[in-house]
Amino acid sequence: MRIGELSRRTGVPVPTIKFYLREGLLPPGELTSHNQARYTEAHVRRLRLIRALIEVGGLSVAATRDVLQKMYAPGMSVLDQAGKAQFAMGAPARPPVEDEAWRQAKAETENLLERLGWQVRETNPARQTLTSALAVLFRLNQTDQLELLDVYARAARQVAEAEIAQLLTQQDHDALLETAVIWTAVGDTVFGALRRFAQEDIAYGSGAVADPPARDEKDET
Amino acid sequence: MRIGELSRRTGVPVPTIKFYLREGLLPPGELTSHNQARYTEAHVRRLRLIRALIEVGGLSVAATRDVLQKMYAPGMSVLDQAGKAQFAMGAPARPPVEDEAWRQAKAETENLLERLGWQVRETNPARQTLTSALAVLFRLNQTDQLELLDVYARAARQVAEAEIAQLLTQQDHDALLETAVIWTAVGDTVFGALRRFAQEDIAYGSGAVADPPARDEKDET
Repeated sequence: MRIGELSRRTGVPVPTIKFYLREGLLPPGELTSHNQARYTEAHVRRLRLIRALIEVGGLSVAATRDVLQKMYAPGMSVLDQAGKAQFAMGAPARPPVEDEAWRQAKAETENLLERLGWQVRETNPARQTLTSALAVLFRLNQTDQLELLDVYARAARQVAEAEIAQLLTQQDHDALLETAVIWTAVGDTVFGALRRFAQEDIAYGSGAVADPPARDEKDET
Repeated sequence: MRIGELSRRTGVPVPTIKFYLREGLLPPGELTSHNQARYTEAHVRRLRLIRALIEVGGLSVAATRDVLQKMYAPGMSVLDQAGKAQFAMGAPARPPVEDEAWRQAKAETENLLERLGWQVRETNPARQTLTSALAVLFRLNQTDQLELLDVYARAARQVAEAEIAQLLTQQDHDALLETAVIWTAVGDTVFGALRRFAQEDIAYGSGAVADPPARDEKDET
């Protein structure tokens, strides 16, 4: 297909597609004349993956290119490839402010991993992500809530086990890799939305807590 | 304290503090002369909350102002205030592309809520968040994984129940509200980091899975 159809199929404007081609996110099409190229279903798929990483995963163009490069680097097991792509997705945008709260948060992250007995490499960028998030709590003296970490960890473990089991039912190597990367990007958003649903249901709905506040806009049906 | 000390205490540069004052995110200090004002511990706390919302929550300045206004709007129950602040935090930046994938995703969101039996208002912005994330999966034909939604929902429910129980142990109204808002912003990040830890531990560590297919076993077509 021509670039115009690629645009129509994916909803990505032609100038944006050209930008991704220049930036090396999208491999070039097959040249059919000096100024025309032909694109395939693989381009449609790659373009949708790029958009998923940028729009839902919130990745920059540079981070997206890094993830794609890691994803398609040859000669490793598929879980290694998925793991490296995931590390690229989690790289923090800038170095943290290493104040006293940050040091307390770092100790908290390490204690948690030790308590859980999980083997997590020093290079896993989620260590920095968690430490930075916990540093915010230390700065705001919100440390009473730290016991929630164990509840979060149990929930995260259940999700991760189901995800990996589901992933390994896939036979096709590239499809497996794509699923791993997409779910890494989409999963946090999905969880966040479901957490908000559950909170609303608990606070106002079927799971009402003791002495629930009156709902200001009650819809009768 | 003077603005210089407020800056030192919070790590927020003076020009940024002045910007937040102009934009109405931070209430003005008490004027001590025509060009000097005195700030209090309440300003330190508010400034840290603003930074948490912007840096960890990823909110824009406009969204942060909206959340703060909702948080401190008087005359409602504290869970209502927290709920309204949370709705402000979840407002999507732009309207979705309502294509066929989006319509399928919307139906999936509604089916899920009905299956769970959760009462969630139409106005909850997490409905749009989930629908947009699921639309990405429909566009990429990643719908085999949709059964993971129920695992995510159970995990999210456990977290939400523990969070609300923990929240309601707090006696002070403003502290409770602040905790609710901060955990809404920080919780998704914390969960995302723990999910990545669990994935690494399962894939490589104590919970090692069977060898997945290797790339070189795959026939190119």
